[in-house]
Amino acid sequence: MTDVVAALRAQLGDRVDTDPDLLERARADKSGHAAAGTPLAVVHAASVDDVQATMRIATATATPVVVRGAGTGLAGAANAGAGEIVLSVRAMTRILEVRPDDLLAVVEPGILNADLNAALAAQGLWWAPDPASRDISTVGGNIATGAGGLLCAKYGVVRDAVLGVDLVLADGRLLRLGHRSVKGVTGLDLTSLVIGSEGTLGVVVAATLKLRRLVPGHARTLTATFPDARAAAAGAAAVTASGVQPAIMELMDAASLAAVHALLGLEQVTPGRAQLTVQTDGAAADAEAEAIAATLAAAGGTVRLAADDAEAELLWRIRRSMHPAMETLGTTLIEDVSVPRSALPAMFDEIARVEREHGVRIPTVCHAGDGNLHPNFVFSGTEVPPEIWAAADDLFRAALRLGGTLTGEHGVGVLKRRWLRDELGDDQWELQRQITRVFDPAGILNPGKVFDR
Amino acid sequence: MTDVVAALRAQLGDRVDTDPDLLERARADKSGHAAAGTPLAVVHAASVDDVQATMRIATATATPVVVRGAGTGLAGAANAGAGEIVLSVRAMTRILEVRPDDLLAVVEPGILNADLNAALAAQGLWWAPDPASRDISTVGGNIATGAGGLLCAKYGVVRDAVLGVDLVLADGRLLRLGHRSVKGVTGLDLTSLVIGSEGTLGVVVAATLKLRRLVPGHARTLTATFPDARAAAAGAAAVTASGVQPAIMELMDAASLAAVHALLGLEQVTPGRAQLTVQTDGAAADAEAEAIAATLAAAGGTVRLAADDAEAELLWRIRRSMHPAMETLGTTLIEDVSVPRSALPAMFDEIARVEREHGVRIPTVCHAGDGNLHPNFVFSGTEVPPEIWAAADDLFRAALRLGGTLTGEHGVGVLKRRWLRDELGDDQWELQRQITRVFDPAGILNPGKVFDR
Repeated sequence: MTDVVAALRAQLGDRVDTDPDLLERARADKSGHAAAGTPLAVVHAASVDDVQATMRIATATATPVVVRGAGTGLAGAANAGAGEIVLSVRAMTRILEVRPDDLLAVVEPGILNADLNAALAAQGLWWAPDPASRDISTVGGNIATGAGGLLCAKYGVVRDAVLGVDLVLADGRLLRLGHRSVKGVTGLDLTSLVIGSEGTLGVVVAATLKLRRLVPGHARTLTATFPDARAAAAGAAAVTASGVQPAIMELMDAASLAAVHALLGLEQVTPGRAQLTVQTDGAAADAEAEAIAATLAAAGGTVRLAADDAEAELLWRIRRSMHPAMETLGTTLIEDVSVPRSALPAMFDEIARVEREHGVRIPTVCHAGDGNLHPNFVFSGTEVPPEIWAAADDLFRAALRLGGTLTGEHGVGVLKRRWLRDELGDDQWELQRQITRVFDPAGILNPGKVFDR
Repeated sequence: MTDVVAALRAQLGDRVDTDPDLLERARADKSGHAAAGTPLAVVHAASVDDVQATMRIATATATPVVVRGAGTGLAGAANAGAGEIVLSVRAMTRILEVRPDDLLAVVEPGILNADLNAALAAQGLWWAPDPASRDISTVGGNIATGAGGLLCAKYGVVRDAVLGVDLVLADGRLLRLGHRSVKGVTGLDLTSLVIGSEGTLGVVVAATLKLRRLVPGHARTLTATFPDARAAAAGAAAVTASGVQPAIMELMDAASLAAVHALLGLEQVTPGRAQLTVQTDGAAADAEAEAIAATLAAAGGTVRLAADDAEAELLWRIRRSMHPAMETLGTTLIEDVSVPRSALPAMFDEIARVEREHGVRIPTVCHAGDGNLHPNFVFSGTEVPPEIWAAADDLFRAALRLGGTLTGEHGVGVLKRRWLRDELGDDQWELQRQITRVFDPAGILNPGKVFDR
């Protein structure tokens, strides 16, 4: 193993880092889960050449490689353990090209989503994927997980916003996947295959992103409170069924609201009530806000249109404070099931059932516009205890029964790999695993992630 | 070979068809190209079971299978030759489910795009992909080619409009790929891999489609004529750069216009002039049409807003008459390069150069909103002569130099497979070929298509 580090140092010099604190941090991500053991070294790649050199050494020495961006994942996919090289692309932050006339940008993977969007905004452009982590997560990480966010029902997910990627294979070869044109069907769509592949197929060293123009006009925000989360979910489903497309539609259940209001020192809402917070944007923002308000009132909601930007900002601050508020309750396992939108009320019934039957608390927020729920399983201590996993297992199976999926936007990583076969079926699971072997015959790219191979 | 047909008949009875006229028709598609030899039989699959039974027999007897829908392809991908089974899914036309509340439909692959959309319209819904062949092409064929159409810059291509597919593998096993929720990142995105795979990975026996609501309001149509195709292309690029998004923006060069006007008995336009035809839709259709008119006038265009629906309909009839008009000129090789939108003027320069240097006529229409061009190489006889291929080769390489791609929406099939390596590079080409072997180890699915394996 010392030989591996020596070989890396011989080629990459001081970009090879064995600082114990750094190695310790590379074991974990924002899920709290940590890999067993300590990785060999972190390579701070500054260029495509650095990535290729690292992969050639890894292949020559049969050393596993964990690619890492900002480490904000929630499934443990970028956690590195004993005997592994951490290949950090966090320092590759350049914007290589912006073409307003072609609505595309070419960027390196380590740039933060928010930094990219700040640079694009100066040209009237944006990259639509907006994970809640956008201030701290990288574009490369967004691609690796196939990230979503709040705006997805109207503006799409990462898969809808990437035209191509440059990919370094396990053996160091560089492939250029995808295209720069709006249309392109030459051969298999390997770009889509890489999106969401969580470091198992190769190292994304550049991405050609599909941009949008900033939406003109003034966004409007409204809230509606309901007697419970199920009623709020039914309200959200009614909005979707009405045909008016909100930019954002978020649901917070009573436990989430209570925790956030306590954290922010706000007056507590009536116990038990759940809330939808909705944003409309574009030229028709006012008319759409009025229409959605009417739909939600008819569904039994108590509706309030934000009077001004300050009130709207407070409402969104409440939603954005979910994660810090959960930290005040204990340790949380943040889950990520996604269901067809019509199944949202039934999914909230299932969450209530799981809470009751397993005796656990599961404060839940939900991207109600697209059916993606984040149930937060609260517990004490640092490791997820078996009874919490049992409750999560029950919840996953309920989501699958409702036509849903295990993970809407966080990925499988290590935390959800044991349920992957349940959703894919044995045949598809095995076929997917074989596809990873085409890219990585020796199995050195993120072994043990996603497929538990 | 008789044994194969006998085995098929034993299981599938009179759904196995060896009518000589039918076998002859299965050799060719709308490209005019025909496979060598005559296929063994056509299986008219009526169910998933039929498809599975056919594939099991094909695997057991190592017999190649060509999956076929309506046979409207333009690259020869569904053409079947000597020793091959034609597996037609054209009779599998059921709409299995429509969910307005979830904006999805589940359909069998043989339904015509236009028939599906007629059924969806009754519920205020539509499936956005709109290849020019939509009246005669199947949803399964649209998926197999990764089809595009006219509305793509605003409303997306097939890849953007499919949530999942049921896929029968070469050995007859059935996989359910994808999901029913808006978001879903469980494992690799095999749905996207199947889209555009041209029958090389499996048989699509059902698809879960992402629907849109019908666009409200009244569409507006306008035209702008320019001194030549380059100037029209520059006008189209100016519209894209202006940030106003037309629903459709089509370019016809002078030769295309002349042929269509002659076919329809319309007054001839001034020789040499090219035309953009633009449609705006939605709530802002009027304002967007005015804005685009101003942009095109500033770019040197002579602009006319259609006064009423009748005039708009005539303008779109002119565009839709391109293919019949080309047939009056001789035989045509319809090409399909796609370039970044800013490169459209340069691509028209290249087309003019190829016409001049090779002494061929290449009337060209172009989906100018997304940079996808259809140069029509005109020749005599039924087989594409070498000098036409030489001109096409020159044009393909020009598109690649401009950052473009060999095929925007028709696929590779047999007609473009010899250029596939040029675009993908040897490493990616070989990796893609290996991926097809994971799905189809014996290589019985559409052998010789796309990869010339």
